[in-house]
Amino acid sequence: MSNVAYDAYREDVAGRANVQDTPELLEYYGELERLGTAALWTVANKIEPWQPKSQSVPMIWRYRELREHVLRSVSLVSPEKAGRRVIYLDNPGRRDVAAAVGWLYSGLQVMHPGEAASAHWHSSSALRFIMEGAGAYTIVNGHKMTLGANDFVITPNGCWHEHGVEEGGLPCIWQDGLDIPLANAMEAGFFGVHPDLHQAVGHPVDDSVGIWGAPGLRPQDARWSAPYSPLFKYQWEPTYEALLNYAGAAEANPYDCHLMNYTNPATGGHVMSTMGASMQLLLPGFAGKAHRHTGSFLYQVAKGSGYSIIDGRRFDWREHDIFCVPSWAWHEHVNASQTEDACLFCFNDLPAIEAMGFYREEALADNGGRQPVMA
Amino acid sequence: MSNVAYDAYREDVAGRANVQDTPELLEYYGELERLGTAALWTVANKIEPWQPKSQSVPMIWRYRELREHVLRSVSLVSPEKAGRRVIYLDNPGRRDVAAAVGWLYSGLQVMHPGEAASAHWHSSSALRFIMEGAGAYTIVNGHKMTLGANDFVITPNGCWHEHGVEEGGLPCIWQDGLDIPLANAMEAGFFGVHPDLHQAVGHPVDDSVGIWGAPGLRPQDARWSAPYSPLFKYQWEPTYEALLNYAGAAEANPYDCHLMNYTNPATGGHVMSTMGASMQLLLPGFAGKAHRHTGSFLYQVAKGSGYSIIDGRRFDWREHDIFCVPSWAWHEHVNASQTEDACLFCFNDLPAIEAMGFYREEALADNGGRQPVMA
Amino acid sequence: MSNVAYDAYREDVAGRANVQDTPELLEYYGELERLGTAALWTVANKIEPWQPKSQSVPMIWRYRELREHVLRSVSLVSPEKAGRRVIYLDNPGRRDVAAAVGWLYSGLQVMHPGEAASAHWHSSSALRFIMEGAGAYTIVNGHKMTLGANDFVITPNGCWHEHGVEEGGLPCIWQDGLDIPLANAMEAGFFGVHPDLHQAVGHPVDDSVGIWGAPGLRPQDARWSAPYSPLFKYQWEPTYEALLNYAGAAEANPYDCHLMNYTNPATGGHVMSTMGASMQLLLPGFAGKAHRHTGSFLYQVAKGSGYSIIDGRRFDWREHDIFCVPSWAWHEHVNASQTEDACLFCFNDLPAIEAMGFYREEALADNGGRQPVMA
Amino acid sequence: MSNVAYDAYREDVAGRANVQDTPELLEYYGELERLGTAALWTVANKIEPWQPKSQSVPMIWRYRELREHVLRSVSLVSPEKAGRRVIYLDNPGRRDVAAAVGWLYSGLQVMHPGEAASAHWHSSSALRFIMEGAGAYTIVNGHKMTLGANDFVITPNGCWHEHGVEEGGLPCIWQDGLDIPLANAMEAGFFGVHPDLHQAVGHPVDDSVGIWGAPGLRPQDARWSAPYSPLFKYQWEPTYEALLNYAGAAEANPYDCHLMNYTNPATGGHVMSTMGASMQLLLPGFAGKAHRHTGSFLYQVAKGSGYSIIDGRRFDWREHDIFCVPSWAWHEHVNASQTEDACLFCFNDLPAIEAMGFYREEALADNGGRQPVMA
Repeated sequence: MSNVAYDAYREDVAGRANVQDTPELLEYYGELERLGTAALWTVANKIEPWQPKSQSVPMIWRYRELREHVLRSVSLVSPEKAGRRVIYLDNPGRRDVAAAVGWLYSGLQVMHPGEAASAHWHSSSALRFIMEGAGAYTIVNGHKMTLGANDFVITPNGCWHEHGVEEGGLPCIWQDGLDIPLANAMEAGFFGVHPDLHQAVGHPVDDSVGIWGAPGLRPQDARWSAPYSPLFKYQWEPTYEALLNYAGAAEANPYDCHLMNYTNPATGGHVMSTMGASMQLLLPGFAGKAHRHTGSFLYQVAKGSGYSIIDGRRFDWREHDIFCVPSWAWHEHVNASQTEDACLFCFNDLPAIEAMGFYREEALADNGGRQPVMA
Repeated sequence: MSNVAYDAYREDVAGRANVQDTPELLEYYGELERLGTAALWTVANKIEPWQPKSQSVPMIWRYRELREHVLRSVSLVSPEKAGRRVIYLDNPGRRDVAAAVGWLYSGLQVMHPGEAASAHWHSSSALRFIMEGAGAYTIVNGHKMTLGANDFVITPNGCWHEHGVEEGGLPCIWQDGLDIPLANAMEAGFFGVHPDLHQAVGHPVDDSVGIWGAPGLRPQDARWSAPYSPLFKYQWEPTYEALLNYAGAAEANPYDCHLMNYTNPATGGHVMSTMGASMQLLLPGFAGKAHRHTGSFLYQVAKGSGYSIIDGRRFDWREHDIFCVPSWAWHEHVNASQTEDACLFCFNDLPAIEAMGFYREEALADNGGRQPVMA
Repeated sequence: MSNVAYDAYREDVAGRANVQDTPELLEYYGELERLGTAALWTVANKIEPWQPKSQSVPMIWRYRELREHVLRSVSLVSPEKAGRRVIYLDNPGRRDVAAAVGWLYSGLQVMHPGEAASAHWHSSSALRFIMEGAGAYTIVNGHKMTLGANDFVITPNGCWHEHGVEEGGLPCIWQDGLDIPLANAMEAGFFGVHPDLHQAVGHPVDDSVGIWGAPGLRPQDARWSAPYSPLFKYQWEPTYEALLNYAGAAEANPYDCHLMNYTNPATGGHVMSTMGASMQLLLPGFAGKAHRHTGSFLYQVAKGSGYSIIDGRRFDWREHDIFCVPSWAWHEHVNASQTEDACLFCFNDLPAIEAMGFYREEALADNGGRQPVMA
Repeated sequence: MSNVAYDAYREDVAGRANVQDTPELLEYYGELERLGTAALWTVANKIEPWQPKSQSVPMIWRYRELREHVLRSVSLVSPEKAGRRVIYLDNPGRRDVAAAVGWLYSGLQVMHPGEAASAHWHSSSALRFIMEGAGAYTIVNGHKMTLGANDFVITPNGCWHEHGVEEGGLPCIWQDGLDIPLANAMEAGFFGVHPDLHQAVGHPVDDSVGIWGAPGLRPQDARWSAPYSPLFKYQWEPTYEALLNYAGAAEANPYDCHLMNYTNPATGGHVMSTMGASMQLLLPGFAGKAHRHTGSFLYQVAKGSGYSIIDGRRFDWREHDIFCVPSWAWHEHVNASQTEDACLFCFNDLPAIEAMGFYREEALADNGGRQPVMA
């Protein structure tokens, strides 16, 4: 006991804990410990930091490096054995919870034509962003959806879901995003396998798009009270067109150029309760200013190339690369091309952060709003 | 006094007023009247009917009859003199409040190329549905919109607004819908003329469509907390396409086939606080069943031809005709064509009815859900 | 036709209708009329006033004048014959709709010990404010409540309800408030008599108070999603105590001194969808400033004496007197006593006015915020 | 690398990962690791459990054991040195995050008459439950509150707050509850010290109770849009009285007897965004059935004595004892007295759990709803 320092976090600032270890105190701390207690002032400055310091490491996963390994998994394991054949992104600072950033899990799933994974549900929410291939589909609560490149799909908390690729299609790769680490952290993770292993499809294919995917229109008969979007698929073409229209109608945001959040058309809110998602357009030559905010963010490059500076380090990216911005990390995004636009897909934990009242943001005031970049 | 009957509404039903006039009571009633009071039982059965009986008369206004008179107004009065050059629909049962049905006003406004009405605001909410012409525009709070056939536009309560037709356009006619009678009934009608008579346009033309008109996407920078839609214009082409998609994805409603409500994308709710609007698709051969509900409804035929049976009377309609369904009137809609679809635009007072808890509906149980039609 | 003036509402103001009748126009107006239409500019200035002018007349009903007439009704009609034995307040400007002010009905109901009225429901919302007697009760959807002086009780839209006075009680008088005129105006009035004429009481007496009447506490098991308060009775003693506490904790409002709205504890909102209610405390010597706002208001003096100046006329009031403030009427309230406080109960149509976006208010700027009083 | 087992979590169930390590796979896993990735099937069954298994240990902290140690801290450290002089509850399963259960921190704070801690704010929400003493006060955003035994007080996220005991009072002990671990887990923890170290008090003492603490009444002038309750203090006496009234008006819940949630009177919702709180009454002889649900719960015995069975272990408790129920732990509460009632104060993370859609519950079906108790 005597060689443990309890005063490692002392700060000589009024209002902060500043208690030096003494023999009497050390004895006292030992008694407290035997009662399942401890003295707050020994940890207060540690557990109440002046501002957040994320455990996640800013990093990038480059598709040109990952792709062959993802494809190789097809020959190594079957979907039946693997459950889902996914290579997941393992942030060095979050390895213990299998997260890519913060409490967000992400992986690249690959399926060959004719393959189908079994149906299951979990209390994690999931989303997918389609990267390549042809013939992929997802079935959510009996609603089947076809999936094309850059389509965004949700499979919310508690819904039966399964994926596959049609015979005659091409090998497909998509990014999965889930809040598995968050569900585990909140000690609320449940999982169930479908009794028939596969769902019956009881609706026209892509019906959620036909019913809920119209601009400014709400179907009279389609009641909706679930806490997630009734629109399960957001297609790339109208999304990209919407961004171009938005850019023509409004001024660019200094940090994000033109960013649109995928939204629940029944409420105007986030698509799911724990994870939000967005697509943003960086116009040719756009060089955003730096800001930081709470929340964890995982980006995929949907179009174009450029770089982001995250906490002073530069990450160059091109199509299909994935990178993360941890909570309270400074970040700025740059489209390196003067002629072509770039698009960044992103998902995040903002719905949870906002619901808990934890969102805060700050603009970088110094240096014209640009971070100095480490060599 | 003695020759007034106070017992005209007697009903011999337990729980209803059933008091016969007597000399003593008549004297009593006279005393009450001198105190600014009266006996409830003399009017209870009148003011508490078993179910609503609308003062509005079901009727149709045929465009082929109205059009020439509307156009003739151009030569008779200037916009400057008229304020707005509008021929309004005057329901015989609602002439005292200048309503087309219930508490809803509607009229046909005509403007020639180069004409412009002055800017004003009122506590009434307004909407427009474009019928013919080219070059029309509306400016709402400095946001200018171009208007094409079958476009639907809102100018909400309290917003500055003005209309005109560009030089080089064609004579334009559109339908106005307002809740003027409702605002007056609620004793809440205010009106103001813009100090400059015209607004400065401070945004890209049609910017609300570029910013808010995308399916399932919400612009990050566009905060919105006003009690009306930030999307001011709903264009015909995507609306019609949405209805076709909806029809391909969901079963037809027995009364309305496929009906979509114009919606506030920021909330998923009605476009304004007092008036809602919808567009519905009647597939070829669709013959709806009869139902009735509270609320007042004014239809315009946006496409095709057919008929509606309203409280037992048949109203044949074709493009641009306008007809009304009063509160609690039985109604059924039929597309008379076996090959072409029909579309009905409609606006109503449902937001007010719903907010006050006054919505009720009933299906016709008899006769296979079809009304007998009067000769 | 020729002797009708269509230009009676002309205004010589830019942006307002200013069209003089001509023979050609008169002929045109006649043609329009035959088509069920009319020219907006002939009525525009009338139906779009610069500000509201209520049809209701500010007035007061004095209890010392009314009471004997109310009591006399007991000997004149039975509850069975009358349905409800009520003398209602008949505003001269609203006689056609049997309203006390705006679209609000009110009356004084009297019942003798042992009497009971039959159970019914209607789409009107109702409230009661108890004035005198002992042993009165109300049953709402099977929940029985005992009623004491100055208690406030709701019987919302669609609920079965009935009233009576226990054997061994005293003759009771209470004020009824209903939105019957509003329900009729919106053409949404339904009425039903209970098949058994009386409800079974299926809960402990006053259970809604026990379950929902606690400050800052919500019962875990009592789910609630109806659009009205689950708390059906608001008792006088805690209400008066709350006002005294409020007065000790916050500054007086310049117009209303200390006013608290009866609220739905499940939402913090109004008690019902169409009618709100409040109790306000005027401290000794309080002399409020004048303001005006939309909405119709009916006051009952719950305690003390004083006067109100409404659109320049002074109305002296004392306990149990009832007076109205029409929409957009200037009003100021004064407690005439320097030693005793005064309390005003009030009910109004604010929930409807607010939901429709029709609320506006204005302070009197001139004369130190006090109205000149007519001789 | 070769001696690491990647297949430790295999399950032989359709739909679950069941991949055996092979030399080829081990080599593959090594390659993935070098790319900052891993194979989902090696961890899937671990990170997606069939149901939650909390890291927190069910336990009890007995006040008769803790009290002397808490009091002793007064002589060991000053509030100035300690920041706050608190002995916190250190769950053995959550020692790394200093939590009493789940992500909830709690401690016992002691102050002597004349002592005052400095003012600060943090993005954690805090609450207090007063245990003993006299003269304690809290100041939140300039609003001062006096604190008596069993009073419940909130100091929400972002508010300046400070505590002290008046000269002439008695030594005070209260329980603090904070979401510090949750704020840290979400990487959203901020902290600030008040520039003057103490706030100016700008309102009458206990004004939030006077303004917002009335049953079924809402102050007209007190606007409120913050995401936490404007009522900062919930006093014991009206709370206990409310529970007795509730017990007289409604049937007992099989698990919780009569439980009321402290509520935000402006919304009817939880008092803060991350933490809720409740007080429950266990009638004499009440023996609750067992159920389990997600969320973390920390109880303090406010009155009486009894025991709880948590995941099969019995914890006897009496006044001021504190015990925890981890997520998804079976639990049942028993009042051991046949003559006196017992009250349990509880705070929890339900607002966060519910907002994220993670709430689930289950009743124990076997054994008459009672858990077998471990010897």
